Amino acid sequence: MRHYLLTPGPTPIPLEVAFKEALPIFHHRTSKFAAIYKNVVEELKYIFKTKNDVYILAASGTGAMETAVINLLSPGDEIIVASCGKFGERWTDIARRCGVNVISVSVEWGKAIVPAAIEKTLKKNPDIKAVYTTFTETSTGVVNDIKRIGEIVSKTNAVLIVDAISGIVGQEFRTDDWKVDAAVSSSQKGFMVAPGLSFITLSDKAWELVKTSRIPKFYFDITKYKNYYIKNETPFTSPVTLITSLQESLRLIKKKGLTDIWEECKLLAKAARAGIKALGLELFSEIPCEVVTSASVPGEIGENIIKTLKEQYEVYIGGGQGALKGKIIRFSHMGDIGKADLIVGFACLEMVLIKLGIKIEKGKAVAAIEEEFLNSEANTLQKLKIEV
Amino acid sequence: MRHYLLTPGPTPIPLEVAFKEALPIFHHRTSKFAAIYKNVVEELKYIFKTKNDVYILAASGTGAMETAVINLLSPGDEIIVASCGKFGERWTDIARRCGVNVISVSVEWGKAIVPAAIEKTLKKNPDIKAVYTTFTETSTGVVNDIKRIGEIVSKTNAVLIVDAISGIVGQEFRTDDWKVDAAVSSSQKGFMVAPGLSFITLSDKAWELVKTSRIPKFYFDITKYKNYYIKNETPFTSPVTLITSLQESLRLIKKKGLTDIWEECKLLAKAARAGIKALGLELFSEIPCEVVTSASVPGEIGENIIKTLKEQYEVYIGGGQGALKGKIIRFSHMGDIGKADLIVGFACLEMVLIKLGIKIEKGKAVAAIEEEFLNSEANTLQKLKIEV
Repeated sequence: MRHYLLTPGPTPIPLEVAFKEALPIFHHRTSKFAAIYKNVVEELKYIFKTKNDVYILAASGTGAMETAVINLLSPGDEIIVASCGKFGERWTDIARRCGVNVISVSVEWGKAIVPAAIEKTLKKNPDIKAVYTTFTETSTGVVNDIKRIGEIVSKTNAVLIVDAISGIVGQEFRTDDWKVDAAVSSSQKGFMVAPGLSFITLSDKAWELVKTSRIPKFYFDITKYKNYYIKNETPFTSPVTLITSLQESLRLIKKKGLTDIWEECKLLAKAARAGIKALGLELFSEIPCEVVTSASVPGEIGENIIKTLKEQYEVYIGGGQGALKGKIIRFSHMGDIGKADLIVGFACLEMVLIKLGIKIEKGKAVAAIEEEFLNSEANTLQKLKIEV
Repeated sequence: MRHYLLTPGPTPIPLEVAFKEALPIFHHRTSKFAAIYKNVVEELKYIFKTKNDVYILAASGTGAMETAVINLLSPGDEIIVASCGKFGERWTDIARRCGVNVISVSVEWGKAIVPAAIEKTLKKNPDIKAVYTTFTETSTGVVNDIKRIGEIVSKTNAVLIVDAISGIVGQEFRTDDWKVDAAVSSSQKGFMVAPGLSFITLSDKAWELVKTSRIPKFYFDITKYKNYYIKNETPFTSPVTLITSLQESLRLIKKKGLTDIWEECKLLAKAARAGIKALGLELFSEIPCEVVTSASVPGEIGENIIKTLKEQYEVYIGGGQGALKGKIIRFSHMGDIGKADLIVGFACLEMVLIKLGIKIEKGKAVAAIEEEFLNSEANTLQKLKIEV
């Protein structure tokens, strides 16, 4: 049965990509696999906008986050975590487990990180080894100004590590230009591949820290990945089907063009925000990102909305996590989600809100979304009129 | 193009299993996923022959091995590693990275672990926390007497941890009856699923050690998996397509019956050994396991054999690892490999050996294999004769 997956990961997988997973398996220590691996990492470098290696891990995104902690730090090190939501807090959880001292420069969920606060804290604490933060915070729909944070951190001895798990591909992100020393992502968001792969890239400045890191590691030991990378291999058995699937998704992304994908996500985000406002709801995030749109809902009915959308229309959206449970809903519009999917999502949301007794006008969100789409298509529209 | 994958992981994936990977993705925090997860872990318990929980990790087998080290031990702890090959040595590598003291009770590659040596070492060192060993050592084709080792270790305070990655499913293995405290495996061997998943189960005695373990961990923190297990979830994004694929493979395994699979692997192993001997080659392993058959080859031509098999016949077999490179070849017969595949493998091996100038008689290995098959099918054969 057809369902509409508007959750921020896993995102829908195009059939061309999914089918690669079903093709006959082959061995990972072969020239056939090496050629695929080589192509995949080159394309990942294009997506990450980096000249450095991008390593592929057989792990979910959290595995890549842990890799970015345990390979750069030692017990007793001091770091800044600039968090604005659930996934930002994960940096703190991982670091504290490893005996690292965390100075929190965090903001309330829904707000964006204040770069000046990071700057101030770095000045006060010159021994700080690293700043860990989040690009697009999936739990709240906020985007942080990584470019500005990169300008600040790059002037110090500290390195900047960014969780770009949900943002990359969908929203402009530039590892090297923005002076990001380590960026991580995973397969099931903008990459449109099934969960099970994650990615990490490190700058030369970050590699200097690897040399002195004393946190124990084996599976996530980045030097192992580096040693195998030159052979176009991974140190442990590669997730062959997920990587062949990733090769196809990277081909589709390149064919469409990363800039065009950024523009498309920007339009979908703009339309989603217009839809939210047309329903009389409030946007939850202070600075909304372009891959997830979150809205506050009255009377903690969030879980009810999500449940009803799922049960009656097979529409899946995200809800509030942790303390936000019931209080917000989240629409994802990254990866293989198009204009029609967003319209379906909002039309069903309208019906569900009415069923739940919220006074809204039928079709109003859809109308607002249509308007955004029509405006963006003005040139095309002009052309159509002439042709008729 | 059709190829024959006789490598010890990844093994061939049945089409029914592979196709599950291509079906529409869905979210992992849903009742649909929970039902699949619940079914999968129940079937995994049946395979592991345990009443305890079996946890699923998004990681290759080494990730599960690391999980079995970092959750049970603390820096300064003393353990025994009983190794007989490349994968046994991995226990030592992981443990030493974590500041654990390793007493090696290892044997030369090709030999089997000596249970009495473990017993002696345990008696001499009553503070030993754990014994880490391997069931079927994939790099040499040896099987170890885990039942006997379990009898020995269970009489002490130490726990027994077994890498059953390649052996389980294909060869009789009984976690609880054999008093194994932690067993690990992964998806791409006997389970006939693509690489990317690994499994771990712990006894109550092992869980006692978890309470005091002080090695830092986050992604592989087993208590997180335990906490989500009761909700039929994993703590981090589940590799949805690999798990739905695993559900189908477990259904196929159960349909055939684990005991019948053990018998089938036993016959294939017997036939493979007969084939090796018929070619005048020597078996490499002292006590051969039933999932991989390894043979010594003259003049270090192993890599040449493997390359020629691959290039001329699209037959993939394993070679020697580490110091054994060039010296041995390895045929896998676990998972979705049948009698016909083994015959193809050996017929092509005959042709390759002749091409490489080795004096053997064409068809002799195949004849020896046919004889083993015919003998095992005596009853069926009798019936056929009567019917004709």
